[in-house]
Amino acid sequence: MPLIVFEGIDGCGKTTQVDRLCAHLERERVAHRRLREPGGTVLGEAMRRMLLDPATKAAPVAELFGYLQARAQLCDEVLAPALARHETVILDRFYHSTIAYQAFGLGLDRERVRAAIELAIGRVKPDVVIWLDLEPAEAERRRDAVRAHDRIEARGLAYLQRVHAGYHALAEEGELQRVDARMNVDDLEQLIWTLIAPLVAPPVR
Amino acid sequence: MPLIVFEGIDGCGKTTQVDRLCAHLERERVAHRRLREPGGTVLGEAMRRMLLDPATKAAPVAELFGYLQARAQLCDEVLAPALARHETVILDRFYHSTIAYQAFGLGLDRERVRAAIELAIGRVKPDVVIWLDLEPAEAERRRDAVRAHDRIEARGLAYLQRVHAGYHALAEEGELQRVDARMNVDDLEQLIWTLIAPLVAPPVR
Repeated sequence: MPLIVFEGIDGCGKTTQVDRLCAHLERERVAHRRLREPGGTVLGEAMRRMLLDPATKAAPVAELFGYLQARAQLCDEVLAPALARHETVILDRFYHSTIAYQAFGLGLDRERVRAAIELAIGRVKPDVVIWLDLEPAEAERRRDAVRAHDRIEARGLAYLQRVHAGYHALAEEGELQRVDARMNVDDLEQLIWTLIAPLVAPPVR
Repeated sequence: MPLIVFEGIDGCGKTTQVDRLCAHLERERVAHRRLREPGGTVLGEAMRRMLLDPATKAAPVAELFGYLQARAQLCDEVLAPALARHETVILDRFYHSTIAYQAFGLGLDRERVRAAIELAIGRVKPDVVIWLDLEPAEAERRRDAVRAHDRIEARGLAYLQRVHAGYHALAEEGELQRVDARMNVDDLEQLIWTLIAPLVAPPVR
């Protein structure tokens, strides 16, 4: 039934923790669905490829609308029906990414971005948003070891610091549940489970 | 220097009148640029193909954001620089299409659509918007003789009637300059020229 969102800059450990949470839910026999943003629909995955392709030239506001298009389609086609069926959904990124990356990161007006987000999501609201807080310099070190940069990652450290400041501001406003991503992976999994357990439906045995 | 926009439902004769105006401007040696929406940039033309493809599944709000993405990119990459250079631009559709087709046609909230449009266009504003007013039934007859329907056209007459009512409301509010598209092509060209001539830069001879 709940919509559980993971947020944070690339390299913070989101994917690992989403893997761990899904494995935990499977052990507990809690039916769930795992999705990512942008993506989760044919339209959204096409938009994802476009937005992350280093060859794409997109003005800041065009980039914003690309993310919003993928999100609107995901909410309409997948999230709203899933939540109406009381499914548990784990979502890797949602609209706080847009506030952090496009409003704080690119300097778009935050109120106008928020109004456009409302239009995209309609009645779909997360039940908990877990922010894996990691310093941008540390996240870059972790990422550099693994793979090449996509279009967003290629913006460098100063950009990521603005994004990180955005997440920090959202956490201060009570929109995100901050966890310290420097913790070791097992301890972090345990901590996140204490936040999720009260939200998920009792296991069907 | 001016931004001249043509609006109206498909089949109203926009393309013919844009052709005629551009030919007239050439005879008068007024430098100008012709563009269409969605389109006019690599990103925008890709979005155009997606939006008009009958195979695309897009929720109403996702469709809205697709048009806004193409528009934001066109404004940033092409229109704002062109207008800063005092170029005359002829644009086949602009944001009144979004108000007519997505707000009136699909029933999206008009104020929220308008706010999102403002974000997309920034400081780019048309100097004149010419609406070729034709009854939807007559426009459909004209179109059916020529080609297959795209995704938007395939919505049928009741949808087009809501779109037409939207254009009518915008004209009543003074946002569009209405011309009667039932007039013969030559008379319409002449009438449109009387609206455009005062706006274009004096000819360079």
